[in-house]
Amino acid sequence: MGEILVPAGAAIIGLLGVVFLIVGILRANPGNEKMRELSRTIQEGAKTFLYREYRTVAILVAVVAIFLCLGPLFGRNVQVNWQTAIAFVIGVLCSALAGWIGMSIATRSNARTTQAATRGLRPALDISFSAGAVTGLSVVCVAFLGLVVVYLVSRVINPVIVEGRIMGNPLMVNGYAMGASLMALFARAGGGIYTKGADMGADLAGKVEAGIPEDDPRNAAVIADNVGDNVGDVAGLGADLLESYVESIIATLAIASSLAIVSLSYLPFYLAAWGIISSLLGVVYVKLIRVEDPQSALNGGTYLGAAFMIAGSFFIVRYFGVSYQGYSIFGPSWAIIGGVISGLALGKVSEYYTSSKYQPVKDLALSAQSGPAVIVVNGLAVGMLSTLIPVVIVAGATLVGYFVAGMYGIATAALGMLSILGITLAVDSYGPVVDNAGGIAEMTHLPPEVRKITDRLDAVGNTTAAIGKGFAIGSAAFAALGLITAYLATISLLSPNPLILSLADPTVLAGLLIGGMVPYLYGALLAKGVSRLAFEVVGEVRRQFKEIPGLMEGKGKADSSRCVDMATRGALKTMMLPGILAIVFPIGVGFVLGPIALGGFLVGSLVVGLPLGIHTANSGAAMDNAKKYIEEGNFGGKGSDAHKAAVIGDTVGDPLKDTVGPSINILIKLMSVISLVLAPIFVLFH
Amino acid sequence: MGEILVPAGAAIIGLLGVVFLIVGILRANPGNEKMRELSRTIQEGAKTFLYREYRTVAILVAVVAIFLCLGPLFGRNVQVNWQTAIAFVIGVLCSALAGWIGMSIATRSNARTTQAATRGLRPALDISFSAGAVTGLSVVCVAFLGLVVVYLVSRVINPVIVEGRIMGNPLMVNGYAMGASLMALFARAGGGIYTKGADMGADLAGKVEAGIPEDDPRNAAVIADNVGDNVGDVAGLGADLLESYVESIIATLAIASSLAIVSLSYLPFYLAAWGIISSLLGVVYVKLIRVEDPQSALNGGTYLGAAFMIAGSFFIVRYFGVSYQGYSIFGPSWAIIGGVISGLALGKVSEYYTSSKYQPVKDLALSAQSGPAVIVVNGLAVGMLSTLIPVVIVAGATLVGYFVAGMYGIATAALGMLSILGITLAVDSYGPVVDNAGGIAEMTHLPPEVRKITDRLDAVGNTTAAIGKGFAIGSAAFAALGLITAYLATISLLSPNPLILSLADPTVLAGLLIGGMVPYLYGALLAKGVSRLAFEVVGEVRRQFKEIPGLMEGKGKADSSRCVDMATRGALKTMMLPGILAIVFPIGVGFVLGPIALGGFLVGSLVVGLPLGIHTANSGAAMDNAKKYIEEGNFGGKGSDAHKAAVIGDTVGDPLKDTVGPSINILIKLMSVISLVLAPIFVLFH
Repeated sequence: MGEILVPAGAAIIGLLGVVFLIVGILRANPGNEKMRELSRTIQEGAKTFLYREYRTVAILVAVVAIFLCLGPLFGRNVQVNWQTAIAFVIGVLCSALAGWIGMSIATRSNARTTQAATRGLRPALDISFSAGAVTGLSVVCVAFLGLVVVYLVSRVINPVIVEGRIMGNPLMVNGYAMGASLMALFARAGGGIYTKGADMGADLAGKVEAGIPEDDPRNAAVIADNVGDNVGDVAGLGADLLESYVESIIATLAIASSLAIVSLSYLPFYLAAWGIISSLLGVVYVKLIRVEDPQSALNGGTYLGAAFMIAGSFFIVRYFGVSYQGYSIFGPSWAIIGGVISGLALGKVSEYYTSSKYQPVKDLALSAQSGPAVIVVNGLAVGMLSTLIPVVIVAGATLVGYFVAGMYGIATAALGMLSILGITLAVDSYGPVVDNAGGIAEMTHLPPEVRKITDRLDAVGNTTAAIGKGFAIGSAAFAALGLITAYLATISLLSPNPLILSLADPTVLAGLLIGGMVPYLYGALLAKGVSRLAFEVVGEVRRQFKEIPGLMEGKGKADSSRCVDMATRGALKTMMLPGILAIVFPIGVGFVLGPIALGGFLVGSLVVGLPLGIHTANSGAAMDNAKKYIEEGNFGGKGSDAHKAAVIGDTVGDPLKDTVGPSINILIKLMSVISLVLAPIFVLFH
Repeated sequence: MGEILVPAGAAIIGLLGVVFLIVGILRANPGNEKMRELSRTIQEGAKTFLYREYRTVAILVAVVAIFLCLGPLFGRNVQVNWQTAIAFVIGVLCSALAGWIGMSIATRSNARTTQAATRGLRPALDISFSAGAVTGLSVVCVAFLGLVVVYLVSRVINPVIVEGRIMGNPLMVNGYAMGASLMALFARAGGGIYTKGADMGADLAGKVEAGIPEDDPRNAAVIADNVGDNVGDVAGLGADLLESYVESIIATLAIASSLAIVSLSYLPFYLAAWGIISSLLGVVYVKLIRVEDPQSALNGGTYLGAAFMIAGSFFIVRYFGVSYQGYSIFGPSWAIIGGVISGLALGKVSEYYTSSKYQPVKDLALSAQSGPAVIVVNGLAVGMLSTLIPVVIVAGATLVGYFVAGMYGIATAALGMLSILGITLAVDSYGPVVDNAGGIAEMTHLPPEVRKITDRLDAVGNTTAAIGKGFAIGSAAFAALGLITAYLATISLLSPNPLILSLADPTVLAGLLIGGMVPYLYGALLAKGVSRLAFEVVGEVRRQFKEIPGLMEGKGKADSSRCVDMATRGALKTMMLPGILAIVFPIGVGFVLGPIALGGFLVGSLVVGLPLGIHTANSGAAMDNAKKYIEEGNFGGKGSDAHKAAVIGDTVGDPLKDTVGPSINILIKLMSVISLVLAPIFVLFH
């Protein structure tokens, strides 16, 4: 038991860090009355949305939990039962809790960041990065503690004996991951539809139709847009990565369990714990270092965390590792290195294709001069082109992991990639806070120097967001790969006859094809949902412009609460069908076509989802930044025809990059983890 | 030998039909001097392009042929040698010949169709359908005769003994398919870049910028656009389907050969021959039936052909078939039925999602009222949504084929789908002829009644094009599936140890991931190529508007030859890199990662390419028809804001539907057939 409690200590230390950061944020000056009011409005909107989202999901959680409890009806020995259901519910709760903490702090930090910006760049960076670090650290610490609790509970109520020792039960632990995954799907999809429905609606009605600037308080949808940043990019992203994080650990556990080697089951706990400490060191670095350039401060923290992780992994592996099947004892360390470096590389590639510092976005901005159709076609092409290197990285890291430590090495590489999530997510979550801070500066008419500082931080935030998105998609693919490997290991273990999932087997081929279609279907439903919501929001903003007396002259006051309410309802309504499909599809394939076809199905969804996710995310980000590049005065600047074309490109890209792309990650992970949990039923049923 | 010469007779009969149709076309009135001149210009442009395209490809063909001749250097017993090279070159020549015939007749029929339209709908349908039937029948007959020649030659120079009988060598026959495939890739990609570069350029400079109508003679790019219709939609499409047709036959042959059952090797020849006869009957029906509605005449011909094919297959199977491995002797007949019906269903699904008769396009047109960004997002979503049913059809037909006749059944289902290509391609190729005819009517200022008739035929042509595209993508996926199955069978046969391509094997997973990225990379290069070419064309048209005195007033004459030349050069230049990548990728994976990873690679490219191809093709077609629906007077009609938005959507969709989507089919097929041909080398090398 001590083997598990010691690493849990790292998460406790991490949470103490979170408390320390929160105290620091709350002590900061929250700004003048107007700023506080705006911040409160955004906070209320985000709270209301999350509360209602959680309530909606609760019904589905109850249904799934009951279904899990009924597992034994399929056969007496099926290890899907009330224990799985409990682990599942704990997973849902941990994800919801981490999302709530992140959102609460982010929405309390936006006006404080604006206020700090009146004192200069460094204080503003301080507050906003603290808010990001709260999200980053609370996600990993809550996730890890929840996992430890479930593992220890399973060790008490349904232990597994390995090499004569009492161990936790991986099948129950899988339920925990499934809970985190289900919550993540709705957080990401719901938040994504919310944020982009509001954003598109605000842009179309404001910037395009009425010709008023972004973040103009006369636009009733602006607050909803700001709320969306928090529920989508903070709570949604956090839930997404929390899931990947948990899954990379449980995939390692599941494979260790199929190998029946005790020390390999302990190893992931220690590696993850050391990852938390490394992330904490990275956070401390960013807080203490007195670098003026925010980008290099953030990069420094990330690299420091990565370096600590890599160095520490050798000591941990030396102490807990074991040589097996002819692999060196240091095999998992090499896999960790592969994972950490691949994760950083994935981010860099996304940055290259989506930042206006590099050629692709500059060329894209240039092509805007030929009109909206050309920039959209080129924007789609840039995203498609950007799939090359990330896919090769994921495939390469898989081969490296396997080469150094077998199947276990593949899962360990995924764990390595996600181990320093505390710092990478901190860097990523700082973006929405400064984005909000800029909006508040604009709406409260603060002096232009303030907006300049928030703009500079926001530009850095866009870069970190691009890096974060590339990292999120790549690591999700890796986590899914770990889960699929674990699924294949599990069905082979459970099946009475040896199972071979050969490509020459038509059921595998059929599974692959159907699995490959699901990300498209899912993406279509989300994209349609966003544009339907945007359509409603546009109608409402137009109505207010017309009906509220004096609004356009700045005398009347826009009724933002109606847009917030509209976005909340619309997002919750739209997320249900794709969410339910993501649950029903793997279950349907598992029952109708069997566990072998389901293996093909999962691989198919990964093989399609990875490039589709990268394509949509990077196409959108590239068009967004091409627009910003033109706004900086290139190719005619604001108001030129090139700019108008780029705004259309940006609007097309919005739902691609913030709704479709990121949600596809979770779709793949959720389908994989559901299959892993229900594998015993499918095997028995067929 | 007689067993092969008898079916070849069907192709001879088919070619006699082609001659008969050609005579009928050439006898028709070619119209007034102006119309003849336009027709000649288009013909010259198309000829020049095809000639230069063939010349460019010839160099690559020579390189590949030499590489094939060097096969024995890898090992004395490697069956890749000068014989493969000869078969390869014959394949290239047959594809080029069929493309040339189709293009020559189509460009001679356009003005004749316009002239016939002055006499009414039926005479115009007569000419244009004859031209389509020439393409359809010459593609299948030339392809089939070439295959018979190669098969018989291989029987003489390098026979295989099966059940004591001398048979043709499937390894040599594979080279024939590879030749057809290589030619198809360049015909489709080159033609696709040409047609859409010219089309986008003409639209952007003419309709959008200068505000002049489509097909206006003042626009220098209009002729290039019309040339593009012929080289892309006639020669390119023909080469694409010729390839699928050949591959469905050779996949059946390869699997029959691995089963070592003589009669199963003869069966595909007889089934294909009966398919030619059935298609001919369908053509005769369309020519003779006196129905006024062109759509129902064309549908009638297709259904009649399908019915004959299905009925005849039972007699053929009863006579030549054999019961094996416990499958019924009629197994292949059921597979044929599955294939024929799936092919028709695939077309219908595409029609549903892309025709303005149905809800999806109507909704899309409605959303154009919210601006260009919304229609593009929704257009992309419609295409994504439309992947659901086709993928399920392909997966279902695969399972049905396997269930009734094993691996051989999967290939037979593909053969069934493509057996009546003569009539389906005839229906499909009639479209570009009437499209051209409408352009000629516009440019020569014929009375509006004439344009009305060509417009009505063109509307039908758009529907048949949508059906044809759905069919082309689905059947390509099926042909690729047959090839991949044959590849897996071949490497298992050649390898000294039993090969298992298990999904749990990381090299297979890495192959799957990398294979899944290639269609994106390829699509990106094509899309970029189209927009680069369009950019150049826009510049040229603008320059002519400015520099040619009196052009806008209709006194000067646009210099269309420069645009034709520009499009030719641009298309040839742009098609090389993606084309070479399509050859280099499978070879690289085969050598570096081995034949097992290559199996994963091929499956990965299929799993991604199928939905990506459907998505791009249907998104583009839906946006095209949404624009047309608005032009019919809905949601404000021509000139309204909705129309402007829809024009942008259409322009985005153009390269997606006519360049990216269709080329991805061929990419998958080419990579599969290259792998099949070079399998002996990869197996030996690893």
